[in-house]
Amino acid sequence: MDLVVESREKTRTMVIELSKKVKKIGEDDPRRVAHSFKAGLALTLVSVFYYVTPLFDGFGVSSMWAVLTVVVIMEYTVGGTLSKGLNRAVATLVGGSLGVAAHQIAVLCGEKGEPILLGLFVFILAAAATFSRFIPEIKARYDYGVTIFILTFSLVAVSSYRVDELLQLALQRVSTIVVGVATCLCTSIFVFPVWAGEDLHKLVAADLEKLANFLEGLSTEYFAEKGEVENLETKSFLQVYISVLNSKPTEDSLMSLARWEPGHGRFWFRHPWKQYLRIGALSRQCAFSMDALATYITTYPKFKPSSDPDLHLKIRKTCQEMSSESAKALKELSSSIRAMTVPSLASRDASTVVATVRKLEDVLSEGKATSDVLHLATIASLLTQLDVRAREIAGSVEELARLAHFKRFDPMHEVRVKP
Amino acid sequence: MDLVVESREKTRTMVIELSKKVKKIGEDDPRRVAHSFKAGLALTLVSVFYYVTPLFDGFGVSSMWAVLTVVVIMEYTVGGTLSKGLNRAVATLVGGSLGVAAHQIAVLCGEKGEPILLGLFVFILAAAATFSRFIPEIKARYDYGVTIFILTFSLVAVSSYRVDELLQLALQRVSTIVVGVATCLCTSIFVFPVWAGEDLHKLVAADLEKLANFLEGLSTEYFAEKGEVENLETKSFLQVYISVLNSKPTEDSLMSLARWEPGHGRFWFRHPWKQYLRIGALSRQCAFSMDALATYITTYPKFKPSSDPDLHLKIRKTCQEMSSESAKALKELSSSIRAMTVPSLASRDASTVVATVRKLEDVLSEGKATSDVLHLATIASLLTQLDVRAREIAGSVEELARLAHFKRFDPMHEVRVKP
Repeated sequence: MDLVVESREKTRTMVIELSKKVKKIGEDDPRRVAHSFKAGLALTLVSVFYYVTPLFDGFGVSSMWAVLTVVVIMEYTVGGTLSKGLNRAVATLVGGSLGVAAHQIAVLCGEKGEPILLGLFVFILAAAATFSRFIPEIKARYDYGVTIFILTFSLVAVSSYRVDELLQLALQRVSTIVVGVATCLCTSIFVFPVWAGEDLHKLVAADLEKLANFLEGLSTEYFAEKGEVENLETKSFLQVYISVLNSKPTEDSLMSLARWEPGHGRFWFRHPWKQYLRIGALSRQCAFSMDALATYITTYPKFKPSSDPDLHLKIRKTCQEMSSESAKALKELSSSIRAMTVPSLASRDASTVVATVRKLEDVLSEGKATSDVLHLATIASLLTQLDVRAREIAGSVEELARLAHFKRFDPMHEVRVKP
Repeated sequence: MDLVVESREKTRTMVIELSKKVKKIGEDDPRRVAHSFKAGLALTLVSVFYYVTPLFDGFGVSSMWAVLTVVVIMEYTVGGTLSKGLNRAVATLVGGSLGVAAHQIAVLCGEKGEPILLGLFVFILAAAATFSRFIPEIKARYDYGVTIFILTFSLVAVSSYRVDELLQLALQRVSTIVVGVATCLCTSIFVFPVWAGEDLHKLVAADLEKLANFLEGLSTEYFAEKGEVENLETKSFLQVYISVLNSKPTEDSLMSLARWEPGHGRFWFRHPWKQYLRIGALSRQCAFSMDALATYITTYPKFKPSSDPDLHLKIRKTCQEMSSESAKALKELSSSIRAMTVPSLASRDASTVVATVRKLEDVLSEGKATSDVLHLATIASLLTQLDVRAREIAGSVEELARLAHFKRFDPMHEVRVKP
C-alpha cells in the first residue's frame, strides 16, 4: 500500500516538474507557443483537402503529399520555412522531370532491360547527389533540396515501372506539394511571423551588451574595491560573457536562414547579414580574451600588499577607467545597432581609450615595478587587448551602419557652420 | 564570336575548379566516397521491391514508403542512421496507433461530426508535439521522431476519413518502413561503417595535439629565438589552435550520435562518451587562453632592449621550458587517448611544470622589474594559466582512462619492490 502511495507521489512530482519546465519554456519566449499553434493550424487547414469531397476528387490520394509537406516544412522562422519550401518545390520539379526522362530511356531497352537500367540510374544519381552534400556550399543552402531530389527521382523512376499514368501522377503530386508549401508560407508570414534576420540582429546587439556588462562589472566590482575583493567567484559579471563564447553555430544558422527572407520591418531584402557574422566573430574573440582575463583574476584573486601603494593605486585607477570606457563604448555600439543609428559616441570613446592606454604606459615606465605590481600589470595588458578588440568591433559596427544605411541619431551632427 | 570563346573558356575553368574541389573533398576523407556508394546501394536494394512482382504484390503501393525511408534515414554515421531509424520506426508505431484510436472515437460522432473532431485532434496533437520540440532533451534525441509522429498521426487520422481498410494499410506501411530501416542499418553497419564514437575519440585526441603544437611552436620558434622574432604573424603555430575554438557543435553532435551506437572495435556499448565532452570543453578553454596569448604576442612582437639582459634571458628561458613541458604533457595525453592507455608521463610532467612556475616566481621577485620585463612577465602569466589548463585536461583524461578502463602502458609500473 505504501509503495502505491509512494509511486503516486513520485509521478505527481514528476508531472509538476515537467509542467514547470514547459511553462518556463513558453514564458522565456512566447513566440514558441504561437509557433506550436501555427503548426497545428497549417496542418488542419491542409487536411481540409481530405474532408471536402470536390477537392479530394481533384487531387485524390495525392492530397497526402500536402499533409506530408506541411509537417516537414513548417519551421520556426520564416527563413526556415521559405528555404525548406523552395528547396522542396524546386527539387521535386527537377527530380520528377529527370525521373520521367530516365523512364523514357529505360523503356527503350525492353521488358528485361528496364528494371536493370532504372536500378542503375537510381544508383548513380543517388550516389552523386549524396556526395554533393559534402560540398560545404550545397550543405549550407541546399541540403534539404538534395534529399528531396533523390527522393523524388527514385520514387518517380522506380514507380514508373508499375504506374501507367506517370505524368498525371507527377502533376498531381507537384500541385499538392505547392499547396502544402503555400499553406506553410502563409501561416509563417502572416500569423505572428518569427524572422531569423531580426533574431540575428538582436542576438548580435545583445552579445555586445553582455561584453559591456563584463567590463562594467570589472570596473565597479573589481577595480573599485579598496581592499580585497570578497567572494570574487560568485560575482555575476564573471559569467556574463560565457554564452558569447559559443555563439557561432546559432549565428551561422540564423544568417543562412535570414538570407532567404524577404524584406520585413526595418530590414530590406539585401540587408548585409554577412556583416553581422563579422561583428559576431570579433565579439567572440573579445569573449575569448575576457575568459583569459576572468580566469587570471579568479586564479589570483588577491592583490598583494604593495611596497609602493601610490603606484599600485594609480595603475588600479587607470585600469578602472579603461574598462569603464570600453564598457561604455560597447554599450553605445549595442544600442546603436538596436536603434539602427550610426554610432557616434563609440569613436570618441575609442580615442579616450587610446589616451588611457598611454597613461598606463607612462605610469608603468615611471617607476621600477615589483612583483605585486606585475600582477596588476598583467591585468592591464589583458585589458589593453580587450580595448583593441572593442575598437575592432566599433569599426565593424560602423561598416554595418554604412552598408545598411543606418540613420544618423542627431541630424544636427551633419550641419556644419562655416566660420 | 569572341564572346562565345570567352564564355566557353569560363565554363571550362569553372568545371575544372569544381572537379578539383570535388576531388579534394573525396581525398580529404575517402569514407565520403564510400558513403555515397552505400547510399546508392541501399536505395537500389530497396527498389527491388518494385521490380520483383511477388514482393510488390505483397506490399503494393506501400513499397514507396520503403524507398522514402531509405532516402530520409541514410546518414553518414552508424549512430545517425540508427537514431533516425529507431525514431522513425517507434514514432510511426505510436503515431499510427494513436491515429487509429482517434479514428475510432471520431466515428462515434456520426457523419457530420467526424471530420470536425478529426480536425480538432490533429490540431491539438500537432500543436502539443511541435511545442515539445522546444524542450532541449527532446530536441537533442527525439526531434526527428516527433516530426514523424505528427506526420503519421495526421496521415492516419486524416486518411481514415477516406480509406476503409485502415488497419491493413497501417500494417503494410509499418512493415515497409521496417524493411527500409533494416536495409539502411545493414548497409551502414556492414559496409565500411563510419562510427560517430570513433570520430569523437579521434577528434578529442587530435585537438589535444593541436594545443601541444601551439606550445611547442611557442617554445622553439618564439622563445628560442635569440634576437627579434621575424615574420611572427606568418608562423603556422599561431594558427594551429584556431579550429579548437569552435569545436563545440561538432563534439556535441558526434556525442549525441555516439550514444546510439552499439559496441564496436575498442569501444563498449556504454563507453563514457560524456567524458569526451568534458575534455573537449577544457581543451576549448585552453584554446581561448592561447588566443589571448597569441594576440598579445602578435600585437607586441618585439622584445624591447633590456636594461637587465641577464634577468631577461632567465625569464625567457623559464618561459621556454614551461611551454615545452606543457607541450610534452599534452602530446602524451593525446597519444595515450589514441592508444587507449593510462597516461603516466602526464602527471610527472605536471609536477615539473609546478617546479618551473615556482622558479619563474623566484626569478621575478629577485630583482626589480622594468617595463621591458613587464612584457615578458605578462607572457609568463598567460603561460602559467595555460599550464593550469593543461593540468586540468590531464585530470579529465585520467578520469576518462578510469571510466573507460584504459590499459596500463607498462605493466612493470604496477610492480612495487619492498625495501
